[in-house]
Amino acid sequence: MLTRNLFKSSAILNNFRCGIASRQLSESVRPKTGILMLNMGGPEKLDDVHDFLLRLFSDRDLMRLPAQSQTSKFIARRRTPRIKEQYAEIGGGSPIHKWTSLQGEGMVELLDKLSPETAPHKFYIGFRYVNPLTEDAIDQMEKDGCQRAIAFSQYPQYSCSTTGSSLNAISRHYKKRNDVSKMLWTAIDRWPTHPTFVKAVAENVKQEIEKFPKSVQKDVVILFSAHSLPMKVVDRGDPYPAEVAATVWKVMEALNFSHSYRLVWQSKVGPLPWLGPATDQAMKGLAANGFVNQLLVPIAFTSDHIETLFELDLEYAKEFASKTKIENIRRAASLNDSPTFIKAISEIVVEHLNSEDSCSTQYHLRCPQCTNASCTEARRFFCQNDRVLKFLKERQDIGRQG
Amino acid sequence: MLTRNLFKSSAILNNFRCGIASRQLSESVRPKTGILMLNMGGPEKLDDVHDFLLRLFSDRDLMRLPAQSQTSKFIARRRTPRIKEQYAEIGGGSPIHKWTSLQGEGMVELLDKLSPETAPHKFYIGFRYVNPLTEDAIDQMEKDGCQRAIAFSQYPQYSCSTTGSSLNAISRHYKKRNDVSKMLWTAIDRWPTHPTFVKAVAENVKQEIEKFPKSVQKDVVILFSAHSLPMKVVDRGDPYPAEVAATVWKVMEALNFSHSYRLVWQSKVGPLPWLGPATDQAMKGLAANGFVNQLLVPIAFTSDHIETLFELDLEYAKEFASKTKIENIRRAASLNDSPTFIKAISEIVVEHLNSEDSCSTQYHLRCPQCTNASCTEARRFFCQNDRVLKFLKERQDIGRQG
Repeated sequence: MLTRNLFKSSAILNNFRCGIASRQLSESVRPKTGILMLNMGGPEKLDDVHDFLLRLFSDRDLMRLPAQSQTSKFIARRRTPRIKEQYAEIGGGSPIHKWTSLQGEGMVELLDKLSPETAPHKFYIGFRYVNPLTEDAIDQMEKDGCQRAIAFSQYPQYSCSTTGSSLNAISRHYKKRNDVSKMLWTAIDRWPTHPTFVKAVAENVKQEIEKFPKSVQKDVVILFSAHSLPMKVVDRGDPYPAEVAATVWKVMEALNFSHSYRLVWQSKVGPLPWLGPATDQAMKGLAANGFVNQLLVPIAFTSDHIETLFELDLEYAKEFASKTKIENIRRAASLNDSPTFIKAISEIVVEHLNSEDSCSTQYHLRCPQCTNASCTEARRFFCQNDRVLKFLKERQDIGRQG
Repeated sequence: MLTRNLFKSSAILNNFRCGIASRQLSESVRPKTGILMLNMGGPEKLDDVHDFLLRLFSDRDLMRLPAQSQTSKFIARRRTPRIKEQYAEIGGGSPIHKWTSLQGEGMVELLDKLSPETAPHKFYIGFRYVNPLTEDAIDQMEKDGCQRAIAFSQYPQYSCSTTGSSLNAISRHYKKRNDVSKMLWTAIDRWPTHPTFVKAVAENVKQEIEKFPKSVQKDVVILFSAHSLPMKVVDRGDPYPAEVAATVWKVMEALNFSHSYRLVWQSKVGPLPWLGPATDQAMKGLAANGFVNQLLVPIAFTSDHIETLFELDLEYAKEFASKTKIENIRRAASLNDSPTFIKAISEIVVEHLNSEDSCSTQYHLRCPQCTNASCTEARRFFCQNDRVLKFLKERQDIGRQG
């Protein structure tokens, strides 16, 4: 029922190798604009699983555990074997480094053309829980002597658990070193409805629907599946659920509301309440009501990862679906190497470079029930529109003199 | 801090009286298209409060209670005194009948101009819990001999608890009478992002921000407040939270994301978990974090009602806010007699009349965890695109012969 396009993957890998080469080439040139692509990352090898989990459970911006420095060690150790098995089943590691590199390569190539005045552009990868770590990437950017540093969240929708944690990590890094940056830092903290991003998702949805048997294509129900959040985080006022819903609405608009759909939530862990409806339960319930042709669409993550390759593909679409009345189930491709998506992220950066904002207006506002001091620090670090204006004016003056 | 524009209200009342006169006038003409404006309604007089509550707590599409026919009586009796007090404080009754009549008048007037081929248009009010009841309105429409009957939900975003309950009531009415309608029934079941509706909300937001002291206008935080839902309903897969989020996003787009904002949820009752963040707690938390200028915007209801006039204005903005660090708080006007909104609902009907759909594609899909048989019945009643096509063809043929 589920397809894997191996030919496509090997073509991508070739592209990716070329990407690395051109990236190494560009390293000799001093970049004017550094773009730090922020994401959580995933273990590339099975041996990285433990450290990935340890960093994740130690992240106090993501979760608060009692005696966290000890508890995190215990949980990471206990969970490592099962998570290793899951990564083994999807080929021995997370492809997120591969995809982010490919996207970054494509992005800077386009950027150099679209925005020659801010070129050369160089991308850096800043993962939160595996190498290349955000902190190391920042040091490299300083060493490279970028003029501008753009913290570009690779999560389309903002959550304190994801983008928030990454931006906090950047401001914390400077605070720890008791240092100010030589670069002008600004942030692209969300882009849930960027039209080209929306187009890229809609393309993948359309393509996947066409792979259903002709006779059932019009009956397919689209299940947009996003990583869920604990209700504690939702009730604190995290903007993520509303921004995911905005993405979903825009994708359906792009599809002219061709099919029925629902926004559903996956990957709940632990006994506490999380936001629903849960993806698997929605699949089952819909099938019981006669909606037996279903398309799963990952909507809050732009590359393949364990939640698509293992949870959606193996756990849900293969194993779980076979125990329900579902007749046809498929999963839309993640954006990965989608040219439309690579165009989208380039456009997002260009629009940011052309604006006078240091971050979104929305980022200024902490969650209504936020008590995390790091969130205040990060806003102090990033919300500096006056610095952007000064920087732009100086550049203009230099341009005039030159 | 909160304004009440009494002059405006009396002007509206005059308009409304004229409206009634013209409506009575049009009653002698046989309407071709009947538009049933669906809403929950509210008690117009204090003496109506008990029956309103009794109908509400008896509605098994809205909630399921053990031994509901008895429990509902008990709860309605017990709650009546407190709710009567609340209605007394907002002037002795709900203004929803007044506003719906005014909107209906304006709508049919525009419709007769915008769509002469489906004129004359007549609006009917179908409330769920007070007079004029949906069932009585249907009987009147049949008696009037309308060719087409449009069930037009006045809730912009679809929830099973609101629009769902009203549409179920219509199909149940015919089933009970064991009768088929002589009219072609279709439904406008949601319109969360209709551009003119979004424009109307954005206008009211802008106007209210301008009433803050000049020096703080740019710091105002917008709190879009919608009626919350029990998590049980959210987890069942009710589309309402995602559609409200879509409205909010589009309104912010229309405002060019001028201010920070959050979507918050009001009116939780009972001890079980409801969707958060709660409006009052968000107000308090934001104020504690320094966001002391706040604008409340009702986003899921288009006329004033107890949740705006009592809960937002009196309970939250007046009493609760005074116990927090909030310095300025206002509430954006409900759409009520907004000419832009009246234009919006006319356009929504015209677009529906011009389409070949009996309802939205999304309405075909029941909630993933739905077990309510009435929801299947209602879909059988409304989801009949072939009947619409037949009707349109017949009309075309008649037009050709004529």
